[in-house]
Amino acid sequence: MPLTPEQQAEIERQRAEPQPTLRVVSAGMEQHLYSAHPVLDHGFVRVIDYMGDDAAITQAARVSYGKGTRSVQNDEGLIRYLMRHWHSTPFEMCEIKLHVKLPVFVARQWIRHRTANVNEYSARYSILDREFYIPTPDHVAAQSAVNNQGRGEALEGEEAARVLDILKTDSMRCYDNYEAMISQDGQQGLARELARMNLPANVYTQWYWKVDLHNLFHFLRLRADAHAQYEIRAYADALCSLVADWVPFAYRAFEDYRLGAATLSAQMVDCLRRMLDGEAVTQENSGMAAREWREFESVLGR
Amino acid sequence: MPLTPEQQAEIERQRAEPQPTLRVVSAGMEQHLYSAHPVLDHGFVRVIDYMGDDAAITQAARVSYGKGTRSVQNDEGLIRYLMRHWHSTPFEMCEIKLHVKLPVFVARQWIRHRTANVNEYSARYSILDREFYIPTPDHVAAQSAVNNQGRGEALEGEEAARVLDILKTDSMRCYDNYEAMISQDGQQGLARELARMNLPANVYTQWYWKVDLHNLFHFLRLRADAHAQYEIRAYADALCSLVADWVPFAYRAFEDYRLGAATLSAQMVDCLRRMLDGEAVTQENSGMAAREWREFESVLGR
Amino acid sequence: MPLTPEQQAEIERQRAEPQPTLRVVSAGMEQHLYSAHPVLDHGFVRVIDYMGDDAAITQAARVSYGKGTRSVQNDEGLIRYLMRHWHSTPFEMCEIKLHVKLPVFVARQWIRHRTANVNEYSARYSILDREFYIPTPDHVAAQSAVNNQGRGEALEGEEAARVLDILKTDSMRCYDNYEAMISQDGQQGLARELARMNLPANVYTQWYWKVDLHNLFHFLRLRADAHAQYEIRAYADALCSLVADWVPFAYRAFEDYRLGAATLSAQMVDCLRRMLDGEAVTQENSGMAAREWREFESVLGR
Amino acid sequence: MPLTPEQQAEIERQRAEPQPTLRVVSAGMEQHLYSAHPVLDHGFVRVIDYMGDDAAITQAARVSYGKGTRSVQNDEGLIRYLMRHWHSTPFEMCEIKLHVKLPVFVARQWIRHRTANVNEYSARYSILDREFYIPTPDHVAAQSAVNNQGRGEALEGEEAARVLDILKTDSMRCYDNYEAMISQDGQQGLARELARMNLPANVYTQWYWKVDLHNLFHFLRLRADAHAQYEIRAYADALCSLVADWVPFAYRAFEDYRLGAATLSAQMVDCLRRMLDGEAVTQENSGMAAREWREFESVLGR
Repeated sequence: MPLTPEQQAEIERQRAEPQPTLRVVSAGMEQHLYSAHPVLDHGFVRVIDYMGDDAAITQAARVSYGKGTRSVQNDEGLIRYLMRHWHSTPFEMCEIKLHVKLPVFVARQWIRHRTANVNEYSARYSILDREFYIPTPDHVAAQSAVNNQGRGEALEGEEAARVLDILKTDSMRCYDNYEAMISQDGQQGLARELARMNLPANVYTQWYWKVDLHNLFHFLRLRADAHAQYEIRAYADALCSLVADWVPFAYRAFEDYRLGAATLSAQMVDCLRRMLDGEAVTQENSGMAAREWREFESVLGR
Repeated sequence: MPLTPEQQAEIERQRAEPQPTLRVVSAGMEQHLYSAHPVLDHGFVRVIDYMGDDAAITQAARVSYGKGTRSVQNDEGLIRYLMRHWHSTPFEMCEIKLHVKLPVFVARQWIRHRTANVNEYSARYSILDREFYIPTPDHVAAQSAVNNQGRGEALEGEEAARVLDILKTDSMRCYDNYEAMISQDGQQGLARELARMNLPANVYTQWYWKVDLHNLFHFLRLRADAHAQYEIRAYADALCSLVADWVPFAYRAFEDYRLGAATLSAQMVDCLRRMLDGEAVTQENSGMAAREWREFESVLGR
Repeated sequence: MPLTPEQQAEIERQRAEPQPTLRVVSAGMEQHLYSAHPVLDHGFVRVIDYMGDDAAITQAARVSYGKGTRSVQNDEGLIRYLMRHWHSTPFEMCEIKLHVKLPVFVARQWIRHRTANVNEYSARYSILDREFYIPTPDHVAAQSAVNNQGRGEALEGEEAARVLDILKTDSMRCYDNYEAMISQDGQQGLARELARMNLPANVYTQWYWKVDLHNLFHFLRLRADAHAQYEIRAYADALCSLVADWVPFAYRAFEDYRLGAATLSAQMVDCLRRMLDGEAVTQENSGMAAREWREFESVLGR
Repeated sequence: MPLTPEQQAEIERQRAEPQPTLRVVSAGMEQHLYSAHPVLDHGFVRVIDYMGDDAAITQAARVSYGKGTRSVQNDEGLIRYLMRHWHSTPFEMCEIKLHVKLPVFVARQWIRHRTANVNEYSARYSILDREFYIPTPDHVAAQSAVNNQGRGEALEGEEAARVLDILKTDSMRCYDNYEAMISQDGQQGLARELARMNLPANVYTQWYWKVDLHNLFHFLRLRADAHAQYEIRAYADALCSLVADWVPFAYRAFEDYRLGAATLSAQMVDCLRRMLDGEAVTQENSGMAAREWREFESVLGR
């Protein structure tokens, strides 16, 4: 359970006090505010604040004096047009602030997205909790044989058990020693900024992360993708659900023109036209290398 | 008057409909939402949306589960500490979205602040209004004799009148010709994206501009400064008032540690210590060039 | 002719003095250094400096101790893989610095690319030259009937002549008055920062612009595109030639996977698969709106 | 020793092949290219490439056609002026690319500087080396009693020995288990992307890091500061030496106006003026809190 009763009470206090505002309100997002959506074994994402809704996107695109809405249908059409034609600035007009609890190795991937604001829990200042990510057995996977930077099938039997045992034992021992080193009981106590270096990368950290919708979509496109590591994908998937409730038109456009879309290279476009003209195109006469040809076939569903 | 009755009515409609939200609300900012604060002769700034308040800064700094407030006094102390010690990320957790109407030459300075989101009214797509910035007589100033990139005293009499006449006449003639070129009355009509190039830099444009509080403070520090050109300073001053109502603790810290602060070089610190020890320090024995010495004296108020 | 004899002499001086360096050198780029490549009637792009070459991309991707090159073939393959799979960071490891002279209305589009470094000629500090962009007759085009933010066919006969006459006359008159206002001959002289506002948007400015290769590709993808305004496209095209000589492998990958590529939406992928299965897919049974369907057909070359 | 003989040979190969270039060359930097400057027990910084020198800063500030140099003295004066008055864009015209080997907990602080380009060694793709940061005994320090996020005096005797023993033992055991889990000897072998989570934060990673001079100065100002954690300060100090050789004028200005400078708040300026007028100002009549007053006294050297 990622939250203590005190933390849960804090969240309920915040959810109990609606106040009037003149700002635009996204009804779909209000229902999620502050609540912790669990991810992995000890992690979560919580929406702390948001700015804007679907209409805010078209309002900015039109540099409008009013709400920017002409009609709901019209708004959705414009949003889809903007997404399809890679207009990024109107989507930057929505903003979201999250509180995320996540393993350090996930945080290290996540932070590579630079166009965002971050405040991380300071392990120089504070003591980290005894919480480590231990994968469920179906996610204890072998090194992939085809993809050098991915994982293959789940390990089986004894090998999986051995891995889980190592991860748990090393985590606990490292944490025991972390506590022992900083303890001021009968000794001076090591500085926290030094002691933390004994903790492995599956320890949980947490941060406030704030990002605009355009950059969030970019994050989701890369991290909700099948090539992303499962553990960060779990966060991306949780965020996708939240965004779908926040800005439903924009999210649908994102699904159609990014998540579910395919980019064809100049060579692929050429081959496609030849195929539609009835030619039997093969990798040999395609001008593509084997790997690229496989990617092309997978777009075509063959 | 910068707004048409229709625009004014749009704004009043938006101000008339408070809705409940669970997000944090800044009472000081709610009173300003949507209203146009006039700047220069045809310009304005309008707050379209905001995220966060003073407590949101400390909440993020503490990576807190709740509101982040321990006590109001404690919050102000922490905000002042963060500002004094150049902690930037907690201030990035507040965000503001503005609708600004401004002359193009001001827009060209403004846009140099890159860490912000912008949607500008498109003169490729739409027709610009017949609105040009004409300075009031007290701002028709001579080139400064001491500062190559500034202005001196107001021009007087005939010269000032001549300048104002030129600015008005050229603006109107250029706009007349802009209209004549795009007109489709008895001719094809020039493309808007080309016709706009006949408009001088005092024509008004408008945009939506969204920025976090840290970067807004950076903007204000440079643009509310005496060295900034008067016309952009007029916008910065209007924004200062709005920010003071939005996040009063943070704004006061900004005044004390940025706007009203002074940076002393290593040489200045050294001279200062010598002076406090009773030494008679002059430019000659200070190790500073004349210009830097004058800047030092002005910090000391001599 | 955009350059004075003095400026030309400065450039030749710089090109005359090769010096030894241990850094990687791009032979293709050395030949372009400092020379002005003319664009439009008075503009140019000049390469002032660059960092890296094709091998620098793979060197960074491999976090290598040496040159990062295994074999030339291997390098090109890796660069194509990185481009195809949207890896952006290795391309950020190359950097280019340009000196560009360009009309203000082009500069206003250009500056919207925020991830770059800029130093612009200061019209607060200095006096602008009497140089204005006047389109050649074949670029004096009508407003497009189908695209609200584009241009159609060239204007003909008298209308074109009228437009060119207006653009020239207004430019010259505005500049005459600019000079008259700042003159200190028998009067105080208006501050430059004010006088410049009388100059129309076809006046030339200049800047130093520095950008990494990933962001330059993003710029080129949007600005060398048929939807970009002709005048900025002229600069993008000139830059494409330079980049092709600088990093030939990366540029070819950019052509294949960005410039000449097409993105298919989820609906388009679905329709395509149905077509390849022999189904007669029409707009009516495609699930696409008319405009999107036309875009789909144009990818298919129908 | 951070480098293998093969790596050392690669570096020497690169240093052995000067080539002619027309670009500006910084003699002070050429001597450092590729060489590994050791930091901490297994880390290093290596300069891989650079762009620009002191003259490139003034060249950009002047948007010059030639070298931008009028006279050496003139250049240094302009650079100092630009630094003192917070002009940032001319300093952005220099760029540096580094190869850095550093412990993960240092990398996590470092990466918070977002305006930079990074390619990190991928532990999803590759196997990390058995190298861990173990502090020297004089850096095994106690938690600070006065500063919640800092360290105090070195631990003594048995406690220090216990800490060092824990750090070494846990590092080695975690690495043994990392190797055991990924081994494909008689088992499938755990995916690298999972196995790495067993490694503590003192394990070394490496990356290519590229940054412009303005942002590098910002990094150095914060990380070469006494409040920064010792381990990242060691890297910042090494970089300071390199930058001093690369752009000596800019570095000296940075020392005088940033590193050695002090910022006085509005209240401090006021107190200072009162003191210089002979008033006996104390914390009580200063309007400052105790902590701020202490900071003021330390600027004054009292």
